[in-house]
This record gives sequence, structure tokens and C-alpha cells, in this order.
Amino acid sequence: MPPLKSKPTGKLISFEGSEGSGKSTQMSMLAARLQKDGRDVVTTREPGGTEIGEQVRNIIVHNSRGDEMCAETELLLFAAARAQLVREVIAPAMQKGSIVLSDRYLDSSTVYQGIGRNLAADPVAQINRFAVGNVMPDLTIVIDVPAEVGLARIRQRASDLPDRMERENIDFYKKVRDGYLVLAKGMADRFVVIDGTQTQDVVSKKIFAAVKERLG
Amino acid sequence: MPPLKSKPTGKLISFEGSEGSGKSTQMSMLAARLQKDGRDVVTTREPGGTEIGEQVRNIIVHNSRGDEMCAETELLLFAAARAQLVREVIAPAMQKGSIVLSDRYLDSSTVYQGIGRNLAADPVAQINRFAVGNVMPDLTIVIDVPAEVGLARIRQRASDLPDRMERENIDFYKKVRDGYLVLAKGMADRFVVIDGTQTQDVVSKKIFAAVKERLG
Repeated sequence: MPPLKSKPTGKLISFEGSEGSGKSTQMSMLAARLQKDGRDVVTTREPGGTEIGEQVRNIIVHNSRGDEMCAETELLLFAAARAQLVREVIAPAMQKGSIVLSDRYLDSSTVYQGIGRNLAADPVAQINRFAVGNVMPDLTIVIDVPAEVGLARIRQRASDLPDRMERENIDFYKKVRDGYLVLAKGMADRFVVIDGTQTQDVVSKKIFAAVKERLG
Repeated sequence: MPPLKSKPTGKLISFEGSEGSGKSTQMSMLAARLQKDGRDVVTTREPGGTEIGEQVRNIIVHNSRGDEMCAETELLLFAAARAQLVREVIAPAMQKGSIVLSDRYLDSSTVYQGIGRNLAADPVAQINRFAVGNVMPDLTIVIDVPAEVGLARIRQRASDLPDRMERENIDFYKKVRDGYLVLAKGMADRFVVIDGTQTQDVVSKKIFAAVKERLG
């Protein structure tokens, strides 16, 4: 049962990168820019984006005994939230011609659970494929910052207590960053990597240029 | 990262069957009987059995907009709860030599989500395998009742409002029943099918006899 029945007129753009890379801010800026151009834009985030997905997010992010969640469980929970998001939100919006922007998508699982937590690549890819069906991003924007920069930014978010994911150590951040760069190199037609250490405005302009160049 | 590091001295017995088959009652009776014989018994249930798994169970069973949960999401949530249960409870107990009795295990996903909800067999099998790692049941007891009997018993449980799973219609129950019988026929070395329309005591004696015969 593929979530997309026919070729959609809309597009899916996913934002990827470490915590603290600035991807959520940049996604909002791109949404505003596209809307100014008269495009119908739907924004969403992972895990979450649906009622069921937000309940799953709550288990993943705020689990009181977080350190004891197995990597396999974590992967499957992300995939569950994603399966729901694709079928309930993303595919219907694409079918109606919207541009969907997603803060994280399947590449987060490849990088965080697969590479980051040393799960075997094959089952991670199989589970990713099962979760998204035939809904692959038209463009994936990786906002790249060194591990130290991402971590430093997170520690400055005064209002936000670091959650489970953000408590990971610097080595994990480095693995994640390298993971994204390897993925992007291997799938250069789908990925674009933007240097996230530049000013917000510069990053934003580069993202908009990449979207125009790749998706017209 | 297989949950079992070496061949365990314990055993895993899973109980399967439709709702209303009597499997939960029978599992308790077997546990009591094995304990009387001086065996160390651990009982658990799916989805659930761990703090994380019970949170997942809550999403699956009590979702207020239950009808809108996609089959793919449901499968992945069951798998997530199972992955946690195997690594946190089942494998450690088996390693210590306990007999673990589980009210449902991976075959429930094959039957309910795979056959019942028409998900393709290959990804269901792959996800099952990923969730359980190398922890397969030593014996699976299917308590078989006609769909009408299971449904009638559920409707008599006065104190229990039927949850999402139990609201399924009779055709679904028939598919589930047939699914278990097909599985049991295909893996006769692991499965035993017990006629659940007999009295509790007769069913219980047959289960104990099967356990003794198969596992010694």
C-alpha cells in the first residue's frame, strides 16, 4: 500500500543535520520565503507531526529512563512516527501540490540510529524503506556544523533543558556529522550540504538558491 | 548486537491466539504449574512488559483516533515494544535459566499486522527478525477457537471496555485464526495448536503435556 498513488505535483524537502545546526530556524525561513512567492507550504517535524507521532516523540525524547532504551527500539519508534507522518500528512499534501518541508526525515535514522548507534546498515535501510513507502525527498538539505559548534549552541539554549538526544557526547556528534557528509557524497543528486557556520542570512540565501536550482 | 550472547539455559514459550481464546488465563495456569515443579518462571506480555513497552502499548491500544493509525505504524510500534522487551526482560531471564512465558510474541505481528492488515510478508518478517534478534521461542502454543467463540467471550467481559483491537469485525477474527493455523502447519517443530473450546482444565493439561513433551 504505497502512500502515494500517483506522481504528486508537490515536492518534499527534508532538512538534516546535528542538533544545533540551525536547521529548524532555516526551515522556517525557507517556508516564509516560499510562501512569499505564493507557494503552498506545509511544514512538519520528526519524530512527531501527527497526534500518534507526537505521542511517540514523547516516549523517545522524554523517557525518564532514557539511557536504557535499546538502539533497536529507538529506530523502530522513529520509523513508526515516520510511517504515520508520511501517510497522514506528507503524501496527502504532496498530492495536493504543496511543498512539504520536514525537519528531519529518513536520513536521520540512517545517521543517528544506524551510524551513530552501530546498527547494521541493511535492516536500517529496510525499515526506512518500509516506513516511507515510495515517498522519498526531492531534495535533502544538510546544514553542516562542526560537532563543537552544534554542542555549544545547544548549551546556550537557556530555556530548553537538553533532552536525551542532546545529552549525547562529542564523539557521537562527530559520528553524526561525518555520517551526513558520507550520505550526501553518496547521493549527490538528492543532497545539498550547506555550511551552517555562516550567518543565518547567508545560510538562508544559499538554501533558497539550492532549492531554486534543484527544483525550479 | 544480538540480545543473547551465548546459548541460554532458559526457555521461551510464547502464547498465541485470537482475543478471547483464553491464552492469558492459560499462561497463568502454566506458570503456576511450572513454579509448583520448582522452576523459575518469568511471565510477560506484548505489547508492553517494560516501562517503554507499556507506553507504546498505551499508544496502540488506547489511541483516541485509533481508526486512523496506519497498519505500518502499528507494526513498527509492536516491533519497538518487542525489541525493548527482548533485550530488557526476555534474554536476561533466559540467560539466568528461567522459563519465560510471553503472552504474544513475534507471530502476533505476522498474523495481525501481516495477514490481518495485508502488509507484505517480506518486510514484516524482516522487521520481526530485527526486533527479536536471535531470541526465537522454543515453543509456541496457539490456543485455537472459532472467531465467533472468541468474539462472544470478549463481549462477556463486563469490566473490560473493548479496546481498539477487540473492536475488529468477525472477518478479521477469521483471518487471524486461519493465519495462526497456517503458521503452525508451516513450522510444526516450533508450534503446537490446542483446541481452546475445551474446558480450562482440559486445555491446561494439554498445554502442560505439550511443554513436557517438547521441552522435557
